Amino acid sequence: MISPAAEDHIIALAGGVGGAKLADGLSHLLGDRLTVVVNTGDDFEHLGFHISPDLDTVTYTLGGVANSQQGWGLEGETWGFMEQLARLGGPAWFKLGDRDLATHAYRTNRFREGATLTDVTAELSAALGVASRLLPMSDDPVRTVIHSGGRSIAFQEYFVRLACGVPVDRIEFAGTATARLNPAIGTLPDPAAVIICPSNPYLSIDPILAVPGARGWLKGLGVPIVVVSPIVGGAAIKGPAAKIMQELDAPVSALGVAAHYRGLADGIVIDSRDEALAEEIAALGIAVHVVPTVMRSKADRVDLADGCLAFARGLTRTLRANPLGLRPNRL
Amino acid sequence: MISPAAEDHIIALAGGVGGAKLADGLSHLLGDRLTVVVNTGDDFEHLGFHISPDLDTVTYTLGGVANSQQGWGLEGETWGFMEQLARLGGPAWFKLGDRDLATHAYRTNRFREGATLTDVTAELSAALGVASRLLPMSDDPVRTVIHSGGRSIAFQEYFVRLACGVPVDRIEFAGTATARLNPAIGTLPDPAAVIICPSNPYLSIDPILAVPGARGWLKGLGVPIVVVSPIVGGAAIKGPAAKIMQELDAPVSALGVAAHYRGLADGIVIDSRDEALAEEIAALGIAVHVVPTVMRSKADRVDLADGCLAFARGLTRTLRANPLGLRPNRL
Repeated sequence: MISPAAEDHIIALAGGVGGAKLADGLSHLLGDRLTVVVNTGDDFEHLGFHISPDLDTVTYTLGGVANSQQGWGLEGETWGFMEQLARLGGPAWFKLGDRDLATHAYRTNRFREGATLTDVTAELSAALGVASRLLPMSDDPVRTVIHSGGRSIAFQEYFVRLACGVPVDRIEFAGTATARLNPAIGTLPDPAAVIICPSNPYLSIDPILAVPGARGWLKGLGVPIVVVSPIVGGAAIKGPAAKIMQELDAPVSALGVAAHYRGLADGIVIDSRDEALAEEIAALGIAVHVVPTVMRSKADRVDLADGCLAFARGLTRTLRANPLGLRPNRL
Repeated sequence: MISPAAEDHIIALAGGVGGAKLADGLSHLLGDRLTVVVNTGDDFEHLGFHISPDLDTVTYTLGGVANSQQGWGLEGETWGFMEQLARLGGPAWFKLGDRDLATHAYRTNRFREGATLTDVTAELSAALGVASRLLPMSDDPVRTVIHSGGRSIAFQEYFVRLACGVPVDRIEFAGTATARLNPAIGTLPDPAAVIICPSNPYLSIDPILAVPGARGWLKGLGVPIVVVSPIVGGAAIKGPAAKIMQELDAPVSALGVAAHYRGLADGIVIDSRDEALAEEIAALGIAVHVVPTVMRSKADRVDLADGCLAFARGLTRTLRANPLGLRPNRL
């Protein structure tokens, strides 16, 4: 394992479960030298609560309290609230564990007291012992909307209630006309690299990139931007990424992911079983690093994080030697 | 046991735990021929929820799901939400069980959908199998405020956070200038009697009577109004009734209770151990019925309910024979 240099600060972009796993590996290596910018396009209001599914997943995962069996929510969760709500005939389509509910109640209560989502995220992170800094992409509402067959569908309606069961024609990030990039981003130390975690490119990373100024900020950092493909062997590890890529006529492969990030990513980490795609990806002007990317254990997370950091370090040297060489589409 | 006549409809007034026990006994005997008008002066907003403590206690008790050990809340309750909220540093002074929380979430959600408190109370009652009708005293906000040493204290702040630990100078029912008596009250069948359950006269029954038109409605029914003393042997069975009576310079006894309801109650049910007070109470022009009133079991609740109904029936005969005789202060 190659330890990161003591002065390195790293910025990661992440959505939900897959992204959170790599962020956890990075956090293990970097501690407070990691800032994770998290998607809030999935956020919604439910039963009067402000729910931030991706922020919660990242916070719980980095806090070591995520429910690993379930893949979401908190460990040691109980379900008295949902059981009783169903008995009373209340809306039971979105599962809220008793302990998880405390997160939403805390957040919503702090909003009433005037706190921002950034404030609340810092408080929840501190309470759960998260060493790294977690930042919502924006303190302003941005909402992912799925357009399908002429209908506009709110994200959780699509994701949970419809279980992604309708074809996606187009994805809209409502609110991006006025949303501002999280102001805390301007106060971060200069990073050594940006890691785009293996989250859904369309549903988790694109909302972050859709916030005005986000792409310009990332490109302007002048450091390697490395993406980890969430597509392995032509399928998504979790979630609807592969289905959506198919519906949007993108190749369902690490090549499709690389093409999606063309113009932004300097390098891509793909899984060993996708090694055959390396040459074609490199032809896009994106450097390729091939390692096992499926994270089944904490050690897997740390290993992948370490591989990403080493790859980014190598790209830094290449960038310095040939500052424009890695980004042909910028020429 | 004297069964009530099949056509009798009975109206009960109730607050929290003690009142709910007698209401449960009445409900056992009367089923859908009982309407319980419930105090909402204790209602408050907490963590974004509309909480109606007395309505919930009555609903849970009549639904057979009240937590008998704890004296409030639901049976089989769990506490994941509160534990996690405390861990996160959220407001933990008001204990909300995981299942109980579903009631508040359901109610608050229905409010957002445009339902009234009366609608929601009917829905919750139906879901929990309550045979009798439960009505909030008003669909408009009425809030009990404690005045103590120049301070105005919201009811739950006084009752829970301060554990009734400050002296009461005066009790205000904010909102009664504009609150309307529950309109559903005007649609009830003519009752055979009104039973004022053994709830705190100052904190649970007075708010109901403070709603404009409430006293006039009750008196205008022209049927016996029977109150059950919550003070037994000079002490309250539960709660701060005795403390408050002392602070307000009222005699802490069934006599003090009778005097409090003078002008409204035609009869009072007092506990056997207070038999010595019967003559003095009768001198106030209030008929007295002496029975064991402490309810430790379901059978106790039904026995007391039966005794109240029999007593009221006797008062009806007296009222008919001498319509003005029972209410000297109205002369």
